[in-house]
Amino acid sequence: MVTNITEEVGRSVWYGWGNPDRARPLSPSARKFLRRTLKLTSVDDARPPVDWSGARVGAVAISDEVLSELRTALGADHVSTESVDRILHCGGKSTPDLLRRRSGDALYAPDVVVFPGNTQDVREILDISLRRRLAVVPFGGGTSVVGGVEPVRGPFEAVVALDLRRLNSLLHIDPLNRTATFEAGIRGPAIEAALEPHGFTLGHFPQSHQQATLGGYVATRSAGQASTGYGRSDDLVKSVHVETPAGPLDVGSSAPGTAAGPQLLDVVVGSEGTLGVITTATVKITPKPDHKTYGAWSFPSFAAGAEAMRRLQHDGVRGDMPHVCRLSDTDETASTFKLGGWKTGALSRYLAVRGQKTPSLALFVWEGSASEIAGRKRRSARILRESRGIRLGPMPALAWEHGRFSGPYLRDELLTRGIYVETVETAATWSRAEQTYRSVRAAILEALRTNGGGAFVQTHISHVYSDGVSLYFTFLAGLEDDGLAQNARVKEVASSAIVAAGATITHHHAIGMDHSPYLEAEIGGLGVKVLRGIKHTLDPDGIMNPGKLIPAHKEEQQ
Amino acid sequence: MVTNITEEVGRSVWYGWGNPDRARPLSPSARKFLRRTLKLTSVDDARPPVDWSGARVGAVAISDEVLSELRTALGADHVSTESVDRILHCGGKSTPDLLRRRSGDALYAPDVVVFPGNTQDVREILDISLRRRLAVVPFGGGTSVVGGVEPVRGPFEAVVALDLRRLNSLLHIDPLNRTATFEAGIRGPAIEAALEPHGFTLGHFPQSHQQATLGGYVATRSAGQASTGYGRSDDLVKSVHVETPAGPLDVGSSAPGTAAGPQLLDVVVGSEGTLGVITTATVKITPKPDHKTYGAWSFPSFAAGAEAMRRLQHDGVRGDMPHVCRLSDTDETASTFKLGGWKTGALSRYLAVRGQKTPSLALFVWEGSASEIAGRKRRSARILRESRGIRLGPMPALAWEHGRFSGPYLRDELLTRGIYVETVETAATWSRAEQTYRSVRAAILEALRTNGGGAFVQTHISHVYSDGVSLYFTFLAGLEDDGLAQNARVKEVASSAIVAAGATITHHHAIGMDHSPYLEAEIGGLGVKVLRGIKHTLDPDGIMNPGKLIPAHKEEQQ
Repeated sequence: MVTNITEEVGRSVWYGWGNPDRARPLSPSARKFLRRTLKLTSVDDARPPVDWSGARVGAVAISDEVLSELRTALGADHVSTESVDRILHCGGKSTPDLLRRRSGDALYAPDVVVFPGNTQDVREILDISLRRRLAVVPFGGGTSVVGGVEPVRGPFEAVVALDLRRLNSLLHIDPLNRTATFEAGIRGPAIEAALEPHGFTLGHFPQSHQQATLGGYVATRSAGQASTGYGRSDDLVKSVHVETPAGPLDVGSSAPGTAAGPQLLDVVVGSEGTLGVITTATVKITPKPDHKTYGAWSFPSFAAGAEAMRRLQHDGVRGDMPHVCRLSDTDETASTFKLGGWKTGALSRYLAVRGQKTPSLALFVWEGSASEIAGRKRRSARILRESRGIRLGPMPALAWEHGRFSGPYLRDELLTRGIYVETVETAATWSRAEQTYRSVRAAILEALRTNGGGAFVQTHISHVYSDGVSLYFTFLAGLEDDGLAQNARVKEVASSAIVAAGATITHHHAIGMDHSPYLEAEIGGLGVKVLRGIKHTLDPDGIMNPGKLIPAHKEEQQ
Repeated sequence: MVTNITEEVGRSVWYGWGNPDRARPLSPSARKFLRRTLKLTSVDDARPPVDWSGARVGAVAISDEVLSELRTALGADHVSTESVDRILHCGGKSTPDLLRRRSGDALYAPDVVVFPGNTQDVREILDISLRRRLAVVPFGGGTSVVGGVEPVRGPFEAVVALDLRRLNSLLHIDPLNRTATFEAGIRGPAIEAALEPHGFTLGHFPQSHQQATLGGYVATRSAGQASTGYGRSDDLVKSVHVETPAGPLDVGSSAPGTAAGPQLLDVVVGSEGTLGVITTATVKITPKPDHKTYGAWSFPSFAAGAEAMRRLQHDGVRGDMPHVCRLSDTDETASTFKLGGWKTGALSRYLAVRGQKTPSLALFVWEGSASEIAGRKRRSARILRESRGIRLGPMPALAWEHGRFSGPYLRDELLTRGIYVETVETAATWSRAEQTYRSVRAAILEALRTNGGGAFVQTHISHVYSDGVSLYFTFLAGLEDDGLAQNARVKEVASSAIVAAGATITHHHAIGMDHSPYLEAEIGGLGVKVLRGIKHTLDPDGIMNPGKLIPAHKEEQQ
């Protein structure tokens, strides 16, 4: 059965997300909500993207000689200097990425895009790049929202976007060991479509699922919407093959548990293309659940809902935890009701009567076998009720699941209507979560409002751990004339507030260029030095994905 | 309540394990079993350890000037060149370690033993060691069975054993986040005694529990007897402070989940003292279970038992898995019956009637709350029965738990009786487990029998994962005149068989010196180069625990 988990969606349009035909227009009530909340005179189409013909792309800075070497290695069909390919590889999908491209700015496009067909091709590209001094930017789904695939040339002759789309096969499935080996360029829906006939799932569904690739998951330590149940990408990955400038490297044990020294898998996982190109990955797979059951609960406050999440995790029976656990703060709950176009009048009145005038909405999905899932849900319900939750029935969770991958389309729609929207995410221990939530939220609101306009911040928890939770902030305001400056201002303030709160600079978006200035605060100067040392061993010339992850030396920054 | 989990046992005697007064003598039936199986004319005391007065210890190769610097830094009481201290730090507890010491050989004792009282003391010791060119061997419980604490001087002026026993406090417990921060030198029982009043447990119980330290657990990626339930030490550790020659380093996120790049925690975990000295560690803690329930089952073969373990893991309800899962092969089952002095005649006859003439014994402990544990055990029992298991009642598992930490005492007893005994362990995927078991077992037997005598190998599974199991081999034979050569011969053959089977060289004993020659086969030449690069960043002079973990350069080996 094709669902939004397995359906193939075309690769994203150059200026935004996915196939724009799949986007839904804003409802009248959503437009009203936004106009009032953001104090805008209009939310009609104000800033549509420029036509393709209006895109400005820089000159190709690569010699025919080098191009001819690449063509000899890969075949002429798999090396492109066409504008269309270069523009499609000139960055990721952060709001500033989109703002630039929507205005026609593709000046920083890579000089050439290569499409290797296998690991050996990748090896040859790296060898040519070393010899010819080319920077190499590995490119999977291109969904980075932190500048992770920015085609930075650095001190090199030219910059190559290395697109892994042709490495898209399931190589091996091992039902006994419950592992599967894929080529790294396979996208989320294709992973699931390949596993489905065998009765398995990877269970990794980030919002970028329909575009993102397995290699990207591993390279960025992504988390998925069901990672509370299945684990994060760094929990799922067992081993990886990576082609580095210094040679091929296999990391991850072939054994289920090992004490054989430091685990280099955890060095490659999260390396964001700065050490080499991940070409294959072996991952844990799980039998597709027979059954799913859904629940939605309302809490009197975000804090009360968070406490209910903690109790599920800490006091619930081992194994009862829902696979999906999401909790919206009262603002996000309000906007979900408005933007989702729900008929929520009766529901709101009912909750108000029950003492929840500004409710905080929680959504759950339990997965498992029919025989045991009811018991798990029932025991969880007892804890949720004890935590002042009101049961709302399964519909809100089903609706969320139906639209689980549509968020990025909404952003394109909002940008077109002159509304600035961006996200920031972190994770914090239980003891720091509330303070982190308050301080980051306040900092974002203040930064948004410096222009005197309206602003809106909504937050949710989407991942629950023994020691804490993730926090995901989505914020909106009128788009300023210089949207890039607006974005830089808000992100800087939000990131600093996260650092000050002692939370992590990123729970699942990774470091890229945008978070790189904050990494040292998290891992220390000596930690950064260790990363630089590892990079020096595997990529001594520094050709791999320049400018990402590892902060530049202080002297270089001057 | 003081149990074998919390009781303080004195530090090990110089030539063997723990307090010898706690050892039980071999029963007559065990002696008979050993004499026959190993074809020995006698198993009476043949090779008792030499008296303390017979220990030969080398000269102290450290200048008064350096000693005086150390004494100024730590206080004179905390710097010792006494023979008693040096002998107690002249290695770990592998069989060759014991053979050497039992014969009086402590020639390779460290020149000086230092006892820092806190992280600052450790910093000063490292600074002095760098300045004075001293090798530093971090020393926790001294329980390494792979040469991990061998006082190797390398190219340095002298070698310092850095004993962490004074760093033995619980620094902070956070019941909300379910984490606790300890000083690294705290031993297993003290960890549990410190957590017990708060209602928590670490749940980490390797056989070395009564001697080993938390820092040692983390430095070696240890696994405990209940790690199927609680996770390995590398699952439990959240963050670590390590003093390296290049400076202090904090690794591990303060957040529950993070995508902030490569995780350097996994570089320090398993580093075996080669990068620096772990001084504190923050670990996950779990509420002490209300309830434990025990089970023992018999299977017609080791393979049938292993398949039952796999089905528990794969087909059981999420969360039902027992915390302790052990399966003995038919040889270990036989020797457990004989050496344990059990009255098993009736049991053996019963099993024979039921078609299990050479049974394979499985032991289980489920931990949890009274309300749900019965259901978990019942559902597990259904799977075990379907897998041809015969239920034996709880007694064998209770007996195992009672004696869970006594194995090393038995080894001392066997060595005294002229019986060579050693262990080798690995882990393999389900698809490789049986072949690994057969080939390693056969290789050990053959190597033991080259002297024409009898030999015995017994094996168990003690850790069950989604993708495979651990395999732990214990082997016995008559002790040859040159026990060290005998041991080297058998270990070499066993290690090569493990490598050839594609299993890991160590599931939980770590690398040390003994497994170092096999590490490159597991992580590759470039992987070793990455480790060397990390070491170069953190310990550029190479003073930390020379000769361990990282294989020497080929040119150095010549």
